[in-house]
Amino acid sequence: MSLHENFWCVIPAGGVGSRLWPLSRAEAPKFLLDLTDSGESLLKTTWNRLLPLASPDRIMVVTGMSHRDSVCEQLPDLLRDNLALEPSPKDSSAAIGLAAALILRRDPDAIIGSFAADHVIRGSVLFERAIRTAVQAAESGSIVTVGIRPTHPATGFGYIKAGEPRTDIATFDVYNVRKFVEKPSRATASKYLSRGDSLWNAGMFISRADVLLAQMAESEPELVAGINKIADAWGTPELARVREQVWPTLKKIAIDYSVAEPAARAGKMLCVAAHFEWDDVGDFASVANLLTRGRAKDLAVLGSQARVLSESSSGIVVAQQDRLVTVVGMQDIVVVDTPDALLVTNKAHAQDVKQLVNRLRDSETEVL
Amino acid sequence: MSLHENFWCVIPAGGVGSRLWPLSRAEAPKFLLDLTDSGESLLKTTWNRLLPLASPDRIMVVTGMSHRDSVCEQLPDLLRDNLALEPSPKDSSAAIGLAAALILRRDPDAIIGSFAADHVIRGSVLFERAIRTAVQAAESGSIVTVGIRPTHPATGFGYIKAGEPRTDIATFDVYNVRKFVEKPSRATASKYLSRGDSLWNAGMFISRADVLLAQMAESEPELVAGINKIADAWGTPELARVREQVWPTLKKIAIDYSVAEPAARAGKMLCVAAHFEWDDVGDFASVANLLTRGRAKDLAVLGSQARVLSESSSGIVVAQQDRLVTVVGMQDIVVVDTPDALLVTNKAHAQDVKQLVNRLRDSETEVL
Repeated sequence: MSLHENFWCVIPAGGVGSRLWPLSRAEAPKFLLDLTDSGESLLKTTWNRLLPLASPDRIMVVTGMSHRDSVCEQLPDLLRDNLALEPSPKDSSAAIGLAAALILRRDPDAIIGSFAADHVIRGSVLFERAIRTAVQAAESGSIVTVGIRPTHPATGFGYIKAGEPRTDIATFDVYNVRKFVEKPSRATASKYLSRGDSLWNAGMFISRADVLLAQMAESEPELVAGINKIADAWGTPELARVREQVWPTLKKIAIDYSVAEPAARAGKMLCVAAHFEWDDVGDFASVANLLTRGRAKDLAVLGSQARVLSESSSGIVVAQQDRLVTVVGMQDIVVVDTPDALLVTNKAHAQDVKQLVNRLRDSETEVL
Repeated sequence: MSLHENFWCVIPAGGVGSRLWPLSRAEAPKFLLDLTDSGESLLKTTWNRLLPLASPDRIMVVTGMSHRDSVCEQLPDLLRDNLALEPSPKDSSAAIGLAAALILRRDPDAIIGSFAADHVIRGSVLFERAIRTAVQAAESGSIVTVGIRPTHPATGFGYIKAGEPRTDIATFDVYNVRKFVEKPSRATASKYLSRGDSLWNAGMFISRADVLLAQMAESEPELVAGINKIADAWGTPELARVREQVWPTLKKIAIDYSVAEPAARAGKMLCVAAHFEWDDVGDFASVANLLTRGRAKDLAVLGSQARVLSESSSGIVVAQQDRLVTVVGMQDIVVVDTPDALLVTNKAHAQDVKQLVNRLRDSETEVL
């Protein structure tokens, strides 16, 4: 049973996740990884999470052309018509905008929800409840985001400052969005937590497809014009030519800036305050925390072949190889052992892996 | 030109060096490793260091039977008669005692010097000067050890407390030994350093072969009796039978306890205060310090195939594999990357690798 006859899910599957190098690679981006030791990629888990909300004929995946085969392998039930391929990465506005434009041409009353392919969510009942509420709120023409009730003063997430409750829409959990706040300092995050008026921005957007595109067009008219050109050519012999011509000209911009923030300033943004566990798994510190379920003194191990022996250590070992990994006296350590590259860092420096990857890119190494 | 017509060198090549696991293995003990990136094993470097003091016909190596081929490969100039093989490890008294007994049968006036196969020494001129002085002091019937002038309050070495200078033997550098002190605490080591009366015990012993055996026989008569039985059978068809019968009964005891300490108590021990650089390279912290020449903020790299990329890190990476090793934001890190085992620890825990190896031994793993 689907949630709503006009509800469509969009899964933008982009982003390498360079802070997860050397596990993540250009050809093994984060959404194709299994970061929770579940035996499934994050993409597959995302797909499965959405199935109670929409049947496969209304789940669209947007991904890079180079990932087509991997995505189809992961998602055998994905319909060919529901796979939108990007010639090059153009950030989330282009990806979600294109999906919205394609869906709109099939279903003028479509409500779309976009859900990142590489986040981790626990608590499917709470997730479904939140999305049902969001769809209900989106029916009236609002753009709706989902905010997670914070459990600690996280500095790695963006925040949503909630305004008045919208009991006219739902008895519980729907609020006006006052503003979005980028990753805050520890002090600011603590203040948010104690005030209790802010939510983690889970990066989900639910709205009518036409409303989303209209909002995007207000701030980025050329981008939406380009998206519409491609969507008009979709399924015709003209597609390749049009896409080749238009796609490279599209502006790279996150949907947060093209849609969410302007809509919030205009008072058109709502949020659903949700209670499920959510993590965008931005770095190995997050992976470790997820696997140890927050027990900071544990050493998490990821990898079915892993043989790990440790003494007085905590953190995470990711072992892709069948060899012995030993860790002695290291707190919050991060060890990632892959066939052609090894990373040793710690949780405090997990974000700095991005700089390392940038250096590797500059050196044109083969291990990216 | 050899130093002295009766001077013989003994190289006991034993000891796996388990704190250097996974670089050191049962089949790749520390003395066969290149820990200074010189391109040569410690054994080969030891051999070369002794050549100015004794020609190959007077350098004897004592090692385990399982290391015969490796040792002969490393030391092509080692004479077959000068290789004494141990059926099993019996610590330094048996090894050096056997060498002394064998040499004594060929040269009743032999003075032997024993030099560990797995130490690092820099300053060959100063080393040779110290050994010349020690041989001169040993001629009169003393047992002579070599002490290194400390440069910092090391807690990983044993110390020699020096007594009166023996200007009757040499103008400079020869002293009575008052006592030996085991690895001291940091506070005690600092006290020794400030007093200036103590030396690092470099584990070298120089004495007449007959004097050494007589001293050993005082405290360990059965051990010396066993050694003599084997030495008597050496070169005869009886050797295999005698060795098989006697060797397993020999007491495992370090020469420090069977010879050096009793001799010091009896006032028969001298030391030469030496100025060369010396390290017993007991763990990876020592290897790192040697390679960075004490620059604690450097990241040392050991391994000809190593491809290492680091950000804000210090310590050591030992890379035996042709793959990329990356280290981000880790101070005093120790990473040892071998084909079948990886170790991650830090300098402060470098000694704890021994406990890890003990656990591996208990688990009967194949990577020892």
